[in-house]
Amino acid sequence: MGRWEPNARGRLEEAALQLYSERGFDRTTVAEIAEHAGLTERTYFRYFADKREVLFGGEGALDEIITHAVAEAGHAVAPIDAVAAGLTAVGEMFRGRADHARRRQAVIAANPGLQERELIKLSRLAASTADALRRRGVAEPTASVTAETAIAVFKVAFERWVTDGGELADVIADSFAELKTVAGAGQ
Amino acid sequence: MGRWEPNARGRLEEAALQLYSERGFDRTTVAEIAEHAGLTERTYFRYFADKREVLFGGEGALDEIITHAVAEAGHAVAPIDAVAAGLTAVGEMFRGRADHARRRQAVIAANPGLQERELIKLSRLAASTADALRRRGVAEPTASVTAETAIAVFKVAFERWVTDGGELADVIADSFAELKTVAGAGQ
Repeated sequence: MGRWEPNARGRLEEAALQLYSERGFDRTTVAEIAEHAGLTERTYFRYFADKREVLFGGEGALDEIITHAVAEAGHAVAPIDAVAAGLTAVGEMFRGRADHARRRQAVIAANPGLQERELIKLSRLAASTADALRRRGVAEPTASVTAETAIAVFKVAFERWVTDGGELADVIADSFAELKTVAGAGQ
Repeated sequence: MGRWEPNARGRLEEAALQLYSERGFDRTTVAEIAEHAGLTERTYFRYFADKREVLFGGEGALDEIITHAVAEAGHAVAPIDAVAAGLTAVGEMFRGRADHARRRQAVIAANPGLQERELIKLSRLAASTADALRRRGVAEPTASVTAETAIAVFKVAFERWVTDGGELADVIADSFAELKTVAGAGQ
């Protein structure tokens, strides 16, 4: 094991984002990211499996927050509201991180491979959300429709927030209100 | 130009699906697919850009059906119902194709690269659906929330249909009814 480096993960994420923004994703190497962060390549690979993963480090945390919110929701709470509460808590995680998220989104938008990785992550998040709902006794197809719909709303909210600013938690709450209007508007 | 081959596209799709199912996606070449279909590699590349694309040929047709349904919907029709009508028409396209769809889904489920391609296609379909809604005067965020939600419901419906059988159009209609229950259930 190398010596302990304070906030190595955060430093690597910031260094990667800076280099990907300046030079482009394809023209940046892991060695350069590590050097820019004042760390070694070996340390980089202790945290991230590859060059893409440094942009997607938060997945585990998101998953945990949503699963926790669904597990802890009172039994009177509708499934969609339990998931919305979890996603709003995810939104709180991003308080003060709008600039970081905006730069990250610009890097992803410029690279089809990164867009694919982002979609896979969202798809996994929907699958684990549906699992959490089923563990709470929500039957199919309600669990899957709720989970996939909620992650779709989250995706739209995240994009709105990156473009328009404000607080992500507020944009998420507003987007779920919009979902209810949209779905309730039909016959 | 080569000579005209009756239903070359369909023959290539069927040959690819058969070989991908039997040998696996990675162990099948374009040359083998073409040979199995009684056609040349050159003909293959007239229809499909690469080895993955032969599994995703219907994207343009799906897009057209949804866009048409949204454009033609009466002004009293709610946006979500216009998109649901388009997706139900897409469902009609798959009448009698359940076995084909099931085999295709098994090939995709076995290959992460194909899953990514599938997600990218669905994501593009959501984007073009949102475009179609905006052209009809639907404002943001309603257009994006409606489009992303509808495609999420379609994804769930398609997976349900592949697993449970029945008619896709019916499963889609049923899944949109479920969406309204799910979204209406909250506060």
